[in-house]
Amino acid sequence: MSSQIAAVELTKAYRLLNHGPTVLVSARHEGCVNVMAAAWACPLDFNPPKVTVVLDKSSKTRELIEQSGMFVVQVPTVAQLNLTQAVGTLSAYEVPDKLAQCGVEWQAIPGQDQPFVRGCSAWLLCRLLPEPHNQQQYDLFIGEVVGAWADTRVFAGGRWHFERAQPELRSIHHVAGGHFYATGEALSASSAVAVGQD
Amino acid sequence: MSSQIAAVELTKAYRLLNHGPTVLVSARHEGCVNVMAAAWACPLDFNPPKVTVVLDKSSKTRELIEQSGMFVVQVPTVAQLNLTQAVGTLSAYEVPDKLAQCGVEWQAIPGQDQPFVRGCSAWLLCRLLPEPHNQQQYDLFIGEVVGAWADTRVFAGGRWHFERAQPELRSIHHVAGGHFYATGEALSASSAVAVGQD
Repeated sequence: MSSQIAAVELTKAYRLLNHGPTVLVSARHEGCVNVMAAAWACPLDFNPPKVTVVLDKSSKTRELIEQSGMFVVQVPTVAQLNLTQAVGTLSAYEVPDKLAQCGVEWQAIPGQDQPFVRGCSAWLLCRLLPEPHNQQQYDLFIGEVVGAWADTRVFAGGRWHFERAQPELRSIHHVAGGHFYATGEALSASSAVAVGQD
Repeated sequence: MSSQIAAVELTKAYRLLNHGPTVLVSARHEGCVNVMAAAWACPLDFNPPKVTVVLDKSSKTRELIEQSGMFVVQVPTVAQLNLTQAVGTLSAYEVPDKLAQCGVEWQAIPGQDQPFVRGCSAWLLCRLLPEPHNQQQYDLFIGEVVGAWADTRVFAGGRWHFERAQPELRSIHHVAGGHFYATGEALSASSAVAVGQD
């Protein structure tokens, strides 16, 4: 494992997705592996951490998740803009060498056998919590986060530090049609407490 | 209605949330009204557009949504950073004049009677799609978007235009503890097609 990658405390794993980046979702089953892009991924709980992700019925990655019960949600960077767009556009059903065409490489994480995309800034290993009604009716999948890692150049001490890292390591936020915004300026509210209540 | 506010085509309403901003959720029931902040809101479908939002059981806004079956998801701006933090921190159960303390004002939209927070950049009017299991088990609420509007200074022609508007109109993305990132630089993938497939 790269010395730049460190485990993230599970109770802080939600912070890896809290700013709403577009993510890559990967899964493997019986030697078959795939990666897709998903703008519709979101934290669902703090502890144990859970996430939601919307996976269209046409996607090969969805099939692999349904078969294996495991998946990885990872946070791509500005440097991976074209890779993100490409894995979100090409279908593995139509393009058998999709991953090679898109330039996807794997990042080994000791003790883990799931497919982690190299070059991302954070990885959340998820166990599918089967909810057949949500999956069929809404294409909505729920995962419990059972492991989390981040690139310490941008996430350390439980916080993102985009403002002091290279701009190429910032997250990306898809709007539509290949148009994204990078994560921007850091801002702090004048009375800083938790958001998410009322 | 302000001349800066225009209706957004429902099939493009997902774009108002696709970049993953922290939102404000408001609801009204029998003369009682409230607003909370939510970082965990996400598009769920294109057409008809749907959204998910996570609402803690301790929140007054959740109670109003359960009672009225309607809510508004709106996108606050950099100028509303402290308002967002404040409505996400104070509880209406403990602070009866929460909205006045937080400086919340309402934006009239002709023909609509739901509470739209003034000064936001976009508003999605939602009808609750009751899913008792998701609501109880995961605090997860699903809404169908039945109306959408945006401030034309930042969203026009079906697209955000943060790059040509005042920085104070950018969206905000909460990480934790009152620390946010603004929406940043616009980026386009070299082969621009839709993300969200594989």
